[in-house]
Amino acid sequence: MPDPALRTGFVSLVSAGPGDPELLTLKAVRRLAEAQVVLYDDLASGAVLDHAAPEAQLIPVGKRAGRPSARQEHVNQLLVQHAEAGLRVVRLKSGDAGIFGRLEEELIALTAAGIPFEIVPGVSSASAAAAAAGIPLTRRLTARRLQFVTGADVTGRLPADINWAAIADPGVTTVIFMGQRSFPELVRGLREHGLSGDTPALFAESVGHPHQRLIRTTIDELARMMEKAEVSQPGLILYGPLAFDATPQIG
Amino acid sequence: MPDPALRTGFVSLVSAGPGDPELLTLKAVRRLAEAQVVLYDDLASGAVLDHAAPEAQLIPVGKRAGRPSARQEHVNQLLVQHAEAGLRVVRLKSGDAGIFGRLEEELIALTAAGIPFEIVPGVSSASAAAAAAGIPLTRRLTARRLQFVTGADVTGRLPADINWAAIADPGVTTVIFMGQRSFPELVRGLREHGLSGDTPALFAESVGHPHQRLIRTTIDELARMMEKAEVSQPGLILYGPLAFDATPQIG
Repeated sequence: MPDPALRTGFVSLVSAGPGDPELLTLKAVRRLAEAQVVLYDDLASGAVLDHAAPEAQLIPVGKRAGRPSARQEHVNQLLVQHAEAGLRVVRLKSGDAGIFGRLEEELIALTAAGIPFEIVPGVSSASAAAAAAGIPLTRRLTARRLQFVTGADVTGRLPADINWAAIADPGVTTVIFMGQRSFPELVRGLREHGLSGDTPALFAESVGHPHQRLIRTTIDELARMMEKAEVSQPGLILYGPLAFDATPQIG
Repeated sequence: MPDPALRTGFVSLVSAGPGDPELLTLKAVRRLAEAQVVLYDDLASGAVLDHAAPEAQLIPVGKRAGRPSARQEHVNQLLVQHAEAGLRVVRLKSGDAGIFGRLEEELIALTAAGIPFEIVPGVSSASAAAAAAGIPLTRRLTARRLQFVTGADVTGRLPADINWAAIADPGVTTVIFMGQRSFPELVRGLREHGLSGDTPALFAESVGHPHQRLIRTTIDELARMMEKAEVSQPGLILYGPLAFDATPQIG
């Protein structure tokens, strides 16, 4: 089979991983090196982009990319335009592209335009945060389910259709993406649905970066910290029966 | 900070990813190259092990490793023994080490023995399966939660304490690990708890290998295939509002 990335007019939707350039996959590195155009998010940048060829066109499309809002439709258009021009395009997405990454919108645009594509999976920020904290995401006896939820719907608020029986289950590790603003409200709901305020919680910020910060606490205390703005950077929140007793020697 | 893998008597718990050697991370490759001993699972082998140094000692510890059952305790002992001998040890685990990988048992053994360790996160088989099928794991409007569950408890049967409200939720992507044997029974439960038998299902076998097989069907039909043993290899099962309409052009 010829290497799909060497065909022209092709889009690789590449997962950049959590931000640590060492957590790129070999496939992501190869696709970046072969790309003629790279469209990248804010978080999927820095040293990760060093793998692109010097002559490649690098286009930032994240929210901080200069224009007030590089909207999803504009990203879709750029993807289609460059692929239709016969170029090898990499769309670099932070974390694993398939998890809360607006991947579907881009797949639909590419399919509608008849442009061949592939998805390159990557390391999710949830896996990276747990690894940095030295804890497993699942536990054989106490956390046999693992769930990823979003703390914000399209309006930026706590989604209205939350399945409380699912997310207040004490025997589960829950990972909240984009949850910082709504976490105090979420915790009130969790408490009302029977989850203990002493449930362990981890806040993970800038995992794999030199300024990485991990806060091992409880859901009550983390909600308090967020209300008082003691935690102000975007980050990932994990809660459940987290194995904080087996602390790693490094990191 | 000195590179921890260059210290002696150190264990790197390294995620090997789903089996495709291209989906190893740069960090995993580096740790393998530096290792003096590599303890590996069945699934984390093949071309992945080519990254180890020629003089490294490669020790299979999976279930198919010759002995009837290389029990977890034996693996723990080997890890501790080699690290205490002052060696740089890589424990190579398939998928992401933190997800249904018995990571906790090994962390406890290492902590008890006072051995420094790190966890290197990786690409989960769930991300790889979805990417191969050309679908996102989450969907902005229809699948705002993603959950990973196991289809087998320590006895190999469907866990008794299933949260049906969580796993029969129609607005969620569910990934079942080790679920093949119990899937027909699980589907009966899902139907009883209101999930439609027409719910899309994906069976993914040997993702990233030359003999990769993807079956796009429904939960009812997949349960029927499994009862009739038309699907006999181990694989991953995904179900929920899967985006089968945006089929990728390759893979």
